[in-house]
Amino acid sequence: MTVEIEVFETGESFRAALDRARAAGRRVALVPTMGALHSGHLSLVEEARKRVGQDGLVAVSIFVNPTQFGKNEDYSRYPRTFESDLAKCRAAGVDAIFAPSVEEMYPPGSETRVNVGPLAEPLCGEHRPGHFEGVATIVAKLFALTGPSVAVFGKKDYQQLRVITRMARDLFFPVEILPHPTVREEDGVALSSRNAYLSPTERERARAIPRALAAAAKAFEGGERDPESLRALAHEVVAPVADSIDYVSIVDAETLAPFGPGAKVSDRALLAIALRIGSTRLIDNLVLGEDIPPAAAPL
Amino acid sequence: MTVEIEVFETGESFRAALDRARAAGRRVALVPTMGALHSGHLSLVEEARKRVGQDGLVAVSIFVNPTQFGKNEDYSRYPRTFESDLAKCRAAGVDAIFAPSVEEMYPPGSETRVNVGPLAEPLCGEHRPGHFEGVATIVAKLFALTGPSVAVFGKKDYQQLRVITRMARDLFFPVEILPHPTVREEDGVALSSRNAYLSPTERERARAIPRALAAAAKAFEGGERDPESLRALAHEVVAPVADSIDYVSIVDAETLAPFGPGAKVSDRALLAIALRIGSTRLIDNLVLGEDIPPAAAPL
Repeated sequence: MTVEIEVFETGESFRAALDRARAAGRRVALVPTMGALHSGHLSLVEEARKRVGQDGLVAVSIFVNPTQFGKNEDYSRYPRTFESDLAKCRAAGVDAIFAPSVEEMYPPGSETRVNVGPLAEPLCGEHRPGHFEGVATIVAKLFALTGPSVAVFGKKDYQQLRVITRMARDLFFPVEILPHPTVREEDGVALSSRNAYLSPTERERARAIPRALAAAAKAFEGGERDPESLRALAHEVVAPVADSIDYVSIVDAETLAPFGPGAKVSDRALLAIALRIGSTRLIDNLVLGEDIPPAAAPL
Repeated sequence: MTVEIEVFETGESFRAALDRARAAGRRVALVPTMGALHSGHLSLVEEARKRVGQDGLVAVSIFVNPTQFGKNEDYSRYPRTFESDLAKCRAAGVDAIFAPSVEEMYPPGSETRVNVGPLAEPLCGEHRPGHFEGVATIVAKLFALTGPSVAVFGKKDYQQLRVITRMARDLFFPVEILPHPTVREEDGVALSSRNAYLSPTERERARAIPRALAAAAKAFEGGERDPESLRALAHEVVAPVADSIDYVSIVDAETLAPFGPGAKVSDRALLAIALRIGSTRLIDNLVLGEDIPPAAAPL
């Protein structure tokens, strides 16, 4: 049986289709994206399919959300590759794409915003004021509109994952938030739609990021528990390649709070990096003791 | 057939019951309250029943929401009359009561807040900083938890009604927000749980509020369209009885924005009053050209 992928541009039509699917007993999984899909996104789709099964409905939303971009960020030049995204979704067996306009998601007078509080403050929250308010708001809209039983998010955007999980729990959305491991290229660089901005030499320099994570992970496995030492190890690997560094931080992976003076890092420590190579802002992270970038160490 | 009213204290058990009802084809109506129920609330229940029918499920939530009270407001002394509320709900044919604890609705770390923007700024928003953030947040939680197809709110809290309608629309909650006319005593005073705070002489003074609304309404019907004249008419009626006045305002009933200099009031003008009698803060309002307080004029 071949089922054609359906593309919805209005919330009303999308919701109606999902309501019909639910009425027919199908579970709904949502993979929210900003498009410019790569294999990382497609692994989220696979995960979604696993969770709802062949009888379930896997929906991908494609929406470059203006409220999560700062004034001087890359909203206008963010890659928009709808035809290619559509083909990838079709090949991946996605059932439905929701691709609304900005006016559809933010009609005139639509000023409601969702804030999650302290989790949104450090790391990218500090360097991208308003970013996580935009993220929490659009995902709340998507959850209320879609009513998924499960939604899949990549751990590459670790703070985003935490913010969304917090928002969904706090607002009682009946959705399971499923984190998915970061997908990396063979050289360890995390897949990101923004990698498309990189020149070949910039892409080369980006390999320092997974190397930095791996260096700290190796020291952690060797018993190093001093946050500043681990942080410094990672920092010295990326410092030579970065045009600027937003942060190289070690924080509690649950609360995203820094370790106090004299505190040792626990098993739930997050090492997170945000830096610029050329004009491209790249982020990556690792929960120490968990997933080491696969091909990063040997480089 | 007698169906016993069910009382739920946890979100999980409440949602499970509603999911079962929906699976059985029943529509769900929600009447969010802070308890201390009076005939105004019961008229919301009646309206809810009308909308979902005898086969539907009418749920009343009873929760004194701490986040919508300011530091020096009446959160701790707000009337809590659960046994009496339960009896009234039972008599009114309510199917389910949701009466969660504060910890249930705001578990530790639950810092997510919902803001609707400009609608929450004037009137009570100006005089009760944070109030509408608390309102929008708790109602978003209740909507996500309950998933009602309809929710009923009284027009006595007109700005609240507008804030909630905005929030529900902006976040795409699939719920119809049904406004219900203010219910008044024979002398025109709007029903309010806070009327319980009034001494007999204070209650007597409160009659000036509907009289003020009626005076402005009468002038409006006589052709008066100057906002300041209408406002002044209402103000001079309440000024002698109020211990302090938060506002007597005429604003656009849709946007809650003031009329600009020289502007004439339209058919969608809201006359809104907030004042204190003794230590009790009372509010009331009228959309000019719509509903005149029934017994207010002759007093």
